[in-house]
Formats: sequence, C-alpha cells, structure tokens
Amino acid sequence: MATLKVPSNVPALADDCDNLRKAFQGWGTNEALIISILGHRDASQRRAIRKHYADTYGEELLRSITDEISGDFEWDQRAVILWTLDPAERDAVLANETARKWHPGNPVLVEIACARGSKQLFAVRQAYHDRFKRSLEEDVASHVTGDFRKLLVPLVSSHRYEGPEVNTRLAHSEAKLLHQKIEHKAYADDEVIRILTTRSKAQLLATFNNYNDTFGHPITKDLKADPKDEFLKTLRAVIRCFTCPDRYFEKVARVAIAGNGTDENSLTRVITTRAEVDLKLIKEAYQKRNSVPLEKAVAGDTSGDYESMLLALLGKE
Amino acid sequence: MATLKVPSNVPALADDCDNLRKAFQGWGTNEALIISILGHRDASQRRAIRKHYADTYGEELLRSITDEISGDFEWDQRAVILWTLDPAERDAVLANETARKWHPGNPVLVEIACARGSKQLFAVRQAYHDRFKRSLEEDVASHVTGDFRKLLVPLVSSHRYEGPEVNTRLAHSEAKLLHQKIEHKAYADDEVIRILTTRSKAQLLATFNNYNDTFGHPITKDLKADPKDEFLKTLRAVIRCFTCPDRYFEKVARVAIAGNGTDENSLTRVITTRAEVDLKLIKEAYQKRNSVPLEKAVAGDTSGDYESMLLALLGKE
Repeated sequence: MATLKVPSNVPALADDCDNLRKAFQGWGTNEALIISILGHRDASQRRAIRKHYADTYGEELLRSITDEISGDFEWDQRAVILWTLDPAERDAVLANETARKWHPGNPVLVEIACARGSKQLFAVRQAYHDRFKRSLEEDVASHVTGDFRKLLVPLVSSHRYEGPEVNTRLAHSEAKLLHQKIEHKAYADDEVIRILTTRSKAQLLATFNNYNDTFGHPITKDLKADPKDEFLKTLRAVIRCFTCPDRYFEKVARVAIAGNGTDENSLTRVITTRAEVDLKLIKEAYQKRNSVPLEKAVAGDTSGDYESMLLALLGKE
Repeated sequence: MATLKVPSNVPALADDCDNLRKAFQGWGTNEALIISILGHRDASQRRAIRKHYADTYGEELLRSITDEISGDFEWDQRAVILWTLDPAERDAVLANETARKWHPGNPVLVEIACARGSKQLFAVRQAYHDRFKRSLEEDVASHVTGDFRKLLVPLVSSHRYEGPEVNTRLAHSEAKLLHQKIEHKAYADDEVIRILTTRSKAQLLATFNNYNDTFGHPITKDLKADPKDEFLKTLRAVIRCFTCPDRYFEKVARVAIAGNGTDENSLTRVITTRAEVDLKLIKEAYQKRNSVPLEKAVAGDTSGDYESMLLALLGKE
C-alpha cells in the first residue's frame, strides 16, 4: 500500500552517489536531480546510498543536503532530509523534536507509539539511544506533564503483543469499564490508561467493537464531549491510529491543506512517514472524503522543489 | 564473574542427548547424570541440547524433566528446569508467576527490570510474547495495583540508555528533588517514579552519589523510615539492584538460608539466574558478610539432588 515508485532498473550505487555529488556541486544545487534519485529509492537503498556516499566523499549525505538545499522556507530541505533518514531514525528525530518542544496539541508521539508495529517502535527507541544518548521515555517523561505524561510515557514504552488472539470476555468487561470512566469524565483514569497502553491491537479492536455494540455508538464519539479539549483529542488520536490509520492520516493531511496557509510540518510528516507504508490507502481515503486527488490538493497548496518532492513520494507518474 | 563450570572437552551434542535420554529411562531416573550434564553447560550449549533432544526423540527436554524428576518437594525439578531455560525465557517464566500471584513483598519483577541490561530486559519481553501470548507490561498492569503498579509497569517497560554519559547538574537537581519527596514521605510521587524508571544507570549512580554527598547519608537509609513498609522495601531493592547487585543478591540468599526452614524459591532463583552472570561476586559478598562460604551454607540447608544441582551451579569442584 506504499506509493513510493522505485524504477525497475535501479542505477548502480556508485552512479547514484556520483549524480548526487554532482547535483550538490557547481553553481546552484540541482535539486530536481536529487529528488529524482532519493525520491525513488526505498529505505534499504537510501541506507546503502548514505553509506557509500560517506565512504566515497568523506562527508555525510545529510550534511550535504543541509548545506546545499534551501529555499521555499526550507520545507524542501526538511522533506528531503526526513525522507532520506531510515524510518526508525526519522521517527526518533520527530519524537525528539516533539518531546523537547512539547505542547498538548502535538500528536506526533501518539502516531509513533500507535501507528507503528511493536518491532518498529522498539527500533525507534534504539535509534533514539544512538542519536540522542538518552532514552525516548526519559525525554518524554521529563518534558511532558500531567495527564499527558501519564498517557504518553507508557504509550511510547509499550511493546504490545501482536498475535491475533482475542479474549472476548475481557473485551466486554473492559468496554464496560471504559464506558463507566468516560461517563464520569474520568478520561485520565488509571484503568483507561492501562487498557489503551498495554492491550494488543487485536484485543483493543475487539473492545472498541464491543463498546459500539453495547452502547450504540463508537467510543470516539463519547470522547468528543468537549471538542476543544486537547486530552480528549489525544485519546481519539490513539484510538484512530489503532483502528483506522489511513483515515487518521487522511484527516491530518486534510487539515494541513485546508484553511489559510498550509501546515507544511504536518503535511511533510504524513507524506514522508507513510510513503513506504500506507500512503496509497491514505490517498484513497482523501479522494473519497474530499472528491479531489491528494496529489492535486498538494500541488495546489505547495510549489517549487518542495512540491516536486512531495509529489514524487505520492507516486506521481 | 560466573560460577558455572563447563568442562574443557565438552562431549558431542549427540552424546549429551543420548546420556540425558538414558538418564530418564529405566527404573528410576539417574538425576546425578542429568545434573552432571546440564549443570555444566552454558546457555548456548543448553539451547543446542534442547533443540537436538527434541529433534531426535520427538519430545521436549523440559517435558522429560517434568515427568521424570521429582523428590525433595520437587525443588530439584524446579532448579533443573529454571536452569535449563534460556535466560530470557527463564525471566519471562519467573515474571509471569510473579505477576499472576502478585503480592507486595515479591521482588522478582524489580530484579528482572533492574538487575538485567536493557537488551536482556527487552529479550525477556519478547520471550514473554512468545510464551504467554500477552505482553509483560500488560500482565503486570492488570494484576498489580496502587503505588506498586505505578512503579512496576514503567520499570518493566523501560529501555534505559546504557552509555556512560552523566549530567552532573541533573544529578544534583534530581538528588535534591528525591530528598524533598522522601522528606515529605511522598515515596510514590510522580517525580520519584519518573527518575527511577527512566534515567540511565550511570545517571542514577551519579544522582545517588550526589544524594550521599549533599545529605550525608545514602538514599537507601532515608528509605528505611518504616522497615516493614513493603513499598519502601521495593524502592530500596530497585536502588540496590542498580548500585550493588552482588550485595543485593547476597542478602536474598542470606535471608533464604537463615531462620527456620529454607526459602527454596528465593535460593533457587538467585543461583539459577546469577550462575552465568555474577554468582562469583555474590559468593565473595556472602563469605565476607557471613564468614562462611555460600556453598557450605547451601549444603547445610539443602539435601539430595537439589543440593547437588545448586552446588554444581555454585561451581563446586
């Protein structure tokens, strides 16, 4: 369900690196060439390119990108850098930014904790050690406060079981428990946090389905009591990242594009983190919800090399 | 610092398995033979034996042990089984028993979370998935309650940074913070939990040293306000597993041996979980503290095959 388009005949590693080096040199950077290469290589190919480039030229590829690409308020640079990073490293960078400048409306930690598999989340925690010499949960715990901390620390520390086994009796009793707590507006109750942060995705799906069956509407609806409450918004993001990540990210993209000005940060994040995962599904959800292709909306809202990079990742022919 | 003695000429895998099979068969089990083999093989050798045994005889080695060994109230069986398991699998089994029958005085989860390295703790969480089809934190969160849950869930979910970097300013400010909270008897305060469950071991050592320097005595002394308080006891166990695991386990062994009757459960756990790690240091600490060798104390308190198994792991010639 990825949108990334890798050519059937991938050039030799040495040629890719040679072309990238040429693109950085001379008068002005040939960013179109850079995008035509990096925007069409998968994670393992980009990893090989980074290694070969550093070995050959004695400089990190990411350093060359940082030094040589700028313009469009540097959103093009950020898109190319985030994309070029390994998925786990990219998430570690995003998580670190989010933890350090944390504010209640930022859903990035939820996305990393809930819209990745258990192995991937653990790879993020390892990449975080390597890059920041601290642990992810350490930074989240020391920058985030209150109910958000209570939720986010166990969320990023979780290593959920990923098997298909479901305990239907448990689903029933925990759906009831969630309903009780929500009814009493005890949204950050220990039991709510425990269920959302430790149960497997399969078990949670069963619990949310049971909730819907028993109480006549989805749990996310009951978590909309106050649409402006950021903690409720966060709980809904957790649930939607588990149950319908494509529609969750469709909405992030939609909100980023809609309104006055573009939220480049969110748009770049959705496209770079999902291009190798489920961006095809997100595009389908976008088309369905907005009656316009996501590529068209992105092209209308962005320009220059930034636009080209996003469209490359969106799989534009 | 291990005590395990592996012979310089290890028999061929097929011979080990053949001898084990013979030991289980016939009139009565030849437990001495079993101990003479398994009690002198390291983790990777035992893993190979288990695989070869199952492939050859179509039965799990652990099943043969369970069926054929009994006596001494089966402590010998438990010792042989725990030892034969892979370290991560063994910890997963111990953690599962502890979570399911949880009571405040049980330090096993603390030992697994704090006296193992980050990689090992993660291997335990993976082994837990494989064996129990649930996550470790899920079982801890659903069986443990109150302040203990608040401490133990993040403790078993942690993936601490293991580098040597220390922030001395942070050590100072967090030592002060810990002192403040302890002075107000706020032992389960969010900040106390945050520091103990997320900081790296190197950082925590610096913090505890700073505490000692600034306030004139070790933090563990201030956590003895009520010697019978199980939560305080647990906090002390956390700190001692970080700072002096050898002396921590020496005490567990000492208490298990002292008094009326032996606490076989604790004694077996200390010896099987530490024989390949630091049992040599624990023996030195025991000798120093009790003026008698640990082997002698164990021999005086146990008998039969159980005694033989423990002594083999203790490295008796």
